[in-house]
Amino acid sequence: MRRSDVPTPALLVDIDILDRNIALMRDHAAALGLKLRPHAKAHKCVEIAQRIMAAGALGISCATVGEAEAIALGGVDGILLTAPLASSDGRERLGRLLLRGADIAVVADHPAAVADLSTLAEAAGRRLDVVVDVDVGMGRTGCLEVGDAVALARQISAAPALNYAGIQAYWGNLQQVSPFSARSRRIGIQADRVRAVIAALTSAGLAPAIVSGGGTGSHRIDAATGLFTEIQPGSYLFMDSCYGAISISENDNPFTPSLFVAATVVSVNKPGRVVVNAGWKAFATDSGKPVALRGGPPGADFRFMGDEHGALDFEGRGGPALGSPHEFLTSHREPTVDLHSPLPVVVCAECIALWR
Amino acid sequence: MRRSDVPTPALLVDIDILDRNIALMRDHAAALGLKLRPHAKAHKCVEIAQRIMAAGALGISCATVGEAEAIALGGVDGILLTAPLASSDGRERLGRLLLRGADIAVVADHPAAVADLSTLAEAAGRRLDVVVDVDVGMGRTGCLEVGDAVALARQISAAPALNYAGIQAYWGNLQQVSPFSARSRRIGIQADRVRAVIAALTSAGLAPAIVSGGGTGSHRIDAATGLFTEIQPGSYLFMDSCYGAISISENDNPFTPSLFVAATVVSVNKPGRVVVNAGWKAFATDSGKPVALRGGPPGADFRFMGDEHGALDFEGRGGPALGSPHEFLTSHREPTVDLHSPLPVVVCAECIALWR
Repeated sequence: MRRSDVPTPALLVDIDILDRNIALMRDHAAALGLKLRPHAKAHKCVEIAQRIMAAGALGISCATVGEAEAIALGGVDGILLTAPLASSDGRERLGRLLLRGADIAVVADHPAAVADLSTLAEAAGRRLDVVVDVDVGMGRTGCLEVGDAVALARQISAAPALNYAGIQAYWGNLQQVSPFSARSRRIGIQADRVRAVIAALTSAGLAPAIVSGGGTGSHRIDAATGLFTEIQPGSYLFMDSCYGAISISENDNPFTPSLFVAATVVSVNKPGRVVVNAGWKAFATDSGKPVALRGGPPGADFRFMGDEHGALDFEGRGGPALGSPHEFLTSHREPTVDLHSPLPVVVCAECIALWR
Repeated sequence: MRRSDVPTPALLVDIDILDRNIALMRDHAAALGLKLRPHAKAHKCVEIAQRIMAAGALGISCATVGEAEAIALGGVDGILLTAPLASSDGRERLGRLLLRGADIAVVADHPAAVADLSTLAEAAGRRLDVVVDVDVGMGRTGCLEVGDAVALARQISAAPALNYAGIQAYWGNLQQVSPFSARSRRIGIQADRVRAVIAALTSAGLAPAIVSGGGTGSHRIDAATGLFTEIQPGSYLFMDSCYGAISISENDNPFTPSLFVAATVVSVNKPGRVVVNAGWKAFATDSGKPVALRGGPPGADFRFMGDEHGALDFEGRGGPALGSPHEFLTSHREPTVDLHSPLPVVVCAECIALWR
């Protein structure tokens, strides 16, 4: 199938660009002395996880137990579940993963959750690696006080079925702070907090073997702190217009967007405007509107027109023809990916596979 | 399974409330002398379409050929595809529906599309009902000029494989104009346009048998214009916080939300805040944030905290416990439904089915 014949609206992933991004981050992490456990929450796709592992990653980070199930089924080891589990359903599914022999570690931020994990691991007859989740200013999950993190590490160490594996410190809220110098400064403040947690744990005889965190926007700064053993970036795989607009290092952004939304012109009756079959259901809307890339008139501007439609407004005459294909760069890759399945995989002008 | 045990994040549909909304709109339409072809774009669910048909609807409106495929497979007749098709993929799938004997009519807004539909119907050896889509101020799809609509109706009439079935005039942009009096006034202006199109078509010997349009927010006003033969509302089935905030008639809104997002508290380490496992991937974000309904502290306010998480901020002490269930009303039902499948169906405290 040709790229332009993929049924629309659809997400396209350009595998050449994706592989280039995978190799680039692998090389960066190696040069920075960091292990790499890239996050799967953006793609949730076994084939992509396998490509990342084949390129030499330590493992794959997952946000949900559903992602972990899919990735583990694909034969991927070194899974880290980066969000605390608290529902009985989540625990049951983790229990089944343990029974099936999945190589998975999980974070925890509460004594009750650690007790549940201990029960779970005992029932599965296995030791489970548990990582203490530390809040570093995001206010989402994680222990708030240094003392709480130490107490949790101690509780994990004391549980026969659990292995205290280290800490997680993720500043998701700082990944896109611009300019780079401001991001660097704000991460520096939170890094002091991570340093204090590590010092307190070390004093308590609980020096963390793993210090995991970081993302696409922060990985160079993370490395400079000297605190992390590994990073869990994910956005570099697909990129998007928000990430594309910021610097990843002092003054460049080496990653290229590999993910596009394909749409078709379905109405051409309005002067200075064509309507495509992609709207709120085809694009994430939490971070602004998509950017028209290929097929549109130069400078064309996208505007949401309901669940199924968007307008491309342009200056002058001679707009694109009815039925013509268009491609867009999304503003936020993760929720956009969640709206589409399967994922057509393209190389230049050809579609070569469908991934789920 | 109990309602509180449904794996989260999940969408729940309360079937008793849904059935009440279905019956209420059926009774309204009957009292107003309008036929009813409710829109499936919000639910895309065969079981719901079948319940609507069992309650006496004329048919089901669909926004995409994919929705039409699913609904036709469920044995539903009287399908109207309400958005013009322009991709080769869409035409091929419509062709297969025709060959399988689906009872489906489609809208068109361009001579090239009518020519394609004619070729398609000839190939399928069937006559295809085609409805002229008329733009009534929304600027999305539809003929812009009265003359264009008449020319298109003439072209459809002249095509042996096509049957000119009537017109569609949909003011989607006016459904939620508030207050009701302003909505009524603005629809009145566009209704003059529909009146002019009908008059021109009638003069040309092309009086439309079907005049379709309208929605949940406008159906009482649509009826008052005396122009429509049928309406295609969909939002009344599920409702949402945006629709819940407006009056559907002069001074009341008889429909009740039947759709909820269920989430679980996964972190309780912050004072005045708990974190639930539902974020940008669980809720549509195009129309504001969800409203906390059940399980939360009184007055709790939802805040997005990334792809997988949201915060519930509340005043005072004693927040909900780790692992406790919460339910939310979404701000915009359609894109939210697209993020979830299957759809757990609940009656009061019990989950009785899973719909896809």
